[in-house]
Amino acid sequence: MWSKFIKPHSATCRSSVSKFGNKSQSTAACNSLPAKFPGEPSGPCIKTSIPGPRTKQLLEDLNKIQQANSTSVFVNYDKCCGNYIVDADDNTYLDVYTNISTIPLGYNHPELLQVFNNEHELKSLINRPALGIFPGEDWPKRMKNIMDMIAPSGLTQLNTMMCGACANENAFKHAFMAYRRRERGNDNFSTEETETVLLNQPPGAPKLAIMSFKNSFHGRTLGTLSATRSKYIQKIDIPAFDWPCAPFPQYKYPLEENEKFNMEEDDRCLAEVEHLMEVWYKKGTPVAGVIVEPIQSEGGDNHASPYFFRKLQSIARKNNAAYILDEVQTGGGPTGKFWCHEYFDLECPPDIVTFSKKLQLGGYFTTEDMKPQQPFRTFNTWMGDPGKVILLEKYLEIIKRDKLLENVRSTGKYTLECLKQIQSEFAPFIHSVRGRGTFIALTAETTEKRDEIIRRLRAKGTICGGAHDLTVRLRPTLLFAKPHADIFLESFYEVMKEMTF
Amino acid sequence: MWSKFIKPHSATCRSSVSKFGNKSQSTAACNSLPAKFPGEPSGPCIKTSIPGPRTKQLLEDLNKIQQANSTSVFVNYDKCCGNYIVDADDNTYLDVYTNISTIPLGYNHPELLQVFNNEHELKSLINRPALGIFPGEDWPKRMKNIMDMIAPSGLTQLNTMMCGACANENAFKHAFMAYRRRERGNDNFSTEETETVLLNQPPGAPKLAIMSFKNSFHGRTLGTLSATRSKYIQKIDIPAFDWPCAPFPQYKYPLEENEKFNMEEDDRCLAEVEHLMEVWYKKGTPVAGVIVEPIQSEGGDNHASPYFFRKLQSIARKNNAAYILDEVQTGGGPTGKFWCHEYFDLECPPDIVTFSKKLQLGGYFTTEDMKPQQPFRTFNTWMGDPGKVILLEKYLEIIKRDKLLENVRSTGKYTLECLKQIQSEFAPFIHSVRGRGTFIALTAETTEKRDEIIRRLRAKGTICGGAHDLTVRLRPTLLFAKPHADIFLESFYEVMKEMTF
Repeated sequence: MWSKFIKPHSATCRSSVSKFGNKSQSTAACNSLPAKFPGEPSGPCIKTSIPGPRTKQLLEDLNKIQQANSTSVFVNYDKCCGNYIVDADDNTYLDVYTNISTIPLGYNHPELLQVFNNEHELKSLINRPALGIFPGEDWPKRMKNIMDMIAPSGLTQLNTMMCGACANENAFKHAFMAYRRRERGNDNFSTEETETVLLNQPPGAPKLAIMSFKNSFHGRTLGTLSATRSKYIQKIDIPAFDWPCAPFPQYKYPLEENEKFNMEEDDRCLAEVEHLMEVWYKKGTPVAGVIVEPIQSEGGDNHASPYFFRKLQSIARKNNAAYILDEVQTGGGPTGKFWCHEYFDLECPPDIVTFSKKLQLGGYFTTEDMKPQQPFRTFNTWMGDPGKVILLEKYLEIIKRDKLLENVRSTGKYTLECLKQIQSEFAPFIHSVRGRGTFIALTAETTEKRDEIIRRLRAKGTICGGAHDLTVRLRPTLLFAKPHADIFLESFYEVMKEMTF
Repeated sequence: MWSKFIKPHSATCRSSVSKFGNKSQSTAACNSLPAKFPGEPSGPCIKTSIPGPRTKQLLEDLNKIQQANSTSVFVNYDKCCGNYIVDADDNTYLDVYTNISTIPLGYNHPELLQVFNNEHELKSLINRPALGIFPGEDWPKRMKNIMDMIAPSGLTQLNTMMCGACANENAFKHAFMAYRRRERGNDNFSTEETETVLLNQPPGAPKLAIMSFKNSFHGRTLGTLSATRSKYIQKIDIPAFDWPCAPFPQYKYPLEENEKFNMEEDDRCLAEVEHLMEVWYKKGTPVAGVIVEPIQSEGGDNHASPYFFRKLQSIARKNNAAYILDEVQTGGGPTGKFWCHEYFDLECPPDIVTFSKKLQLGGYFTTEDMKPQQPFRTFNTWMGDPGKVILLEKYLEIIKRDKLLENVRSTGKYTLECLKQIQSEFAPFIHSVRGRGTFIALTAETTEKRDEIIRRLRAKGTICGGAHDLTVRLRPTLLFAKPHADIFLESFYEVMKEMTF
């Protein structure tokens, strides 16, 4: 549909989809497309200027109570449906950002609305336990069920938390504990350790570091914020640990034309990782963990090669540092695999994989090796929330039954190819179209242009996300299918034309 | 009922209640006692040895997936009712610990089970938003409603978070930002600041400290853990910020016999607070915030006088440090006031009050002064959870309607006086009975004796909490009334007799 606007290229664009797979695969993917979401609108419908009058009033109200200027849309969640959200001024948008990538099955999915229409599940929601001491008697079974459905290969342990930042904070703690256990040879703490730790001094509170990457985002609590390196506004005025920041590959696109440069870029970054390991070791703060996103998300959707991730793991292992994959944004299917690191063909399992967002609560999987020997070392009051796990179980059931990862891969391929086609017409105004599954992004020439693209898309009824300085990012639901993609692409193409002619 | 076991003192104990208020107050309190919880058992019922066979099996199952040895009871939440929980072996306990003080209205409260039997509320639960960007259109009203119902006097701003640790992490960030804004005179960041902060170096990531107290507990993420000073097992092997730890008053009980000692203890601690402010200032890491619990909870239920809290506030103000009251455990009514600091008659409002636990989600109130000037400075993906706020609204409605704070005060007075009576018979085996409302604790002679008291109470069907090394703590629901107190007191008295004779 959208391609009618790209007259000379329409045939190419449509046929280009099949370049990526043989016919039978495409057909299989087609068959698995999700059934139409009951009641879903056929397209956006904008009735007011954006923001509308009621939205402005609500922002004013909320600003009296908190700093609310980050608010973008006040949503009427009662009216939202599938891939569409409706705002307080009754404007309907196609949502290609989904509450920062947290809504896997769209809004008001009929099966999700039924989940708590069940006495046991409702009671599990209302009687929220302190899971570390008083879990429900069904909790071991629920945890086992989640393990069986989604545990990354080789990871046998699962801990739940409340959010992504808490997942990463606790991942760091596992890394520190494992590092010290290896150093000490056991977990028999000395009196000096147990006394100094209460004063925040070594050896009890050791000098240890987490290595992260330029432009990474891992959360905003003080530990994770020390590993976050994407934007100053997130960090300014907040004390931080003196931890190393390694360069993350900055690839040239299209990848197929820049293979040599990009491989050298991998090696340059990996060499710097090794160098920083040595520098921090020598200054008495050895690196106990390396945390990395399979695709740097808040930092601008920066990809790195499987080669990079494999080599990085081997450097981490050589230095006794835990290899922590932060799949908070990539996990749960948007890349076309449940975990993005499945694309990397790692030589052995990562030590820790953290999650949140689409999975509705935070948590992490670890190897047996990372398991604390004593209780109460990574404890807190709630340690997750059964009410969210109940929703997660239903999500996983539907994702599997409706073959939604196949849908993500086929819609993603289509969208990516069409965007490349549009890019070929408008580069360098936009460039570096990239993605896995529907986890897709492109780069604008300037921040002002990027912001204007997003603003114009919204005025036409499509909500996209920005990331870092220059990136436009797509984070649709797992139900996002070709008809939705066409609406987005049509709007996007129109915006490109408006802005360049 | 329980007092039949204390023959010589029973009259004294029963009449001693009235010492604390005039008759009409007592009557008013009596009238406000909550109606009997529908279906609530009349007492505990223990059918197996503790832990029972099914519990042992479930612990073995869960230990395969995570370090689960902190688990105390696997609960059948379907069967729990009011102040009673039922375990996986069908044992029924009076719950005087309530999932670490998080269950304000008991289990399966009939009105709470109806909360989501409403399409709008159900949709608010299922369509969980990123509240900082896409809140529901009813969110400003909900926030205003919560403000109107429970905002501490003088605090005009409210931010929600997921848990207590995140509440405190963000409270620290507000304190750091406010401190730097005062130092700089504005929020116009220099290029040096915006560049150095991404390297975790000053001036962008300044050297600033949070002062906390010996035996304090504020959370287990890396920032809050640096302020937590209660037990080594929570902190060991984890790097920490070099922040000051001040002494917290260690009172002698009974208070009325030790006034002079305790006042000197206040002054000793306050002098050390001032000294540490100076030391940290001189070493280039000024204290930007002082965080303190109105009653140190995990640290052993340590109380301090209103005088101490008033003086501490004045020292914080003199040093431009935010005064942060951590009401994560004390907030929500268990002390007989909604916020424990209402007992302190502070000269001006605290800068920040944090909450979680009984309020079902984390968050904090602040003064206007602490409000960030720019958006995205204390942002994260979820920033709370409307599903929990909906429950909170219902809790607050019921707490007010059923006059539950009055119930807490009257049941608390009764329980405290009876425990003092028991203490007078068994001291020094137990001593220092203390509390506000039903937030009551006592100290055992040794850790072994404390643990044995809790174990024996459990075997008789009452679940109590331990805290720190020597403390037994009570954290019942707000519905805990005299008949429940009698069951607890009777069991406790029996345990005392068994252990001392």
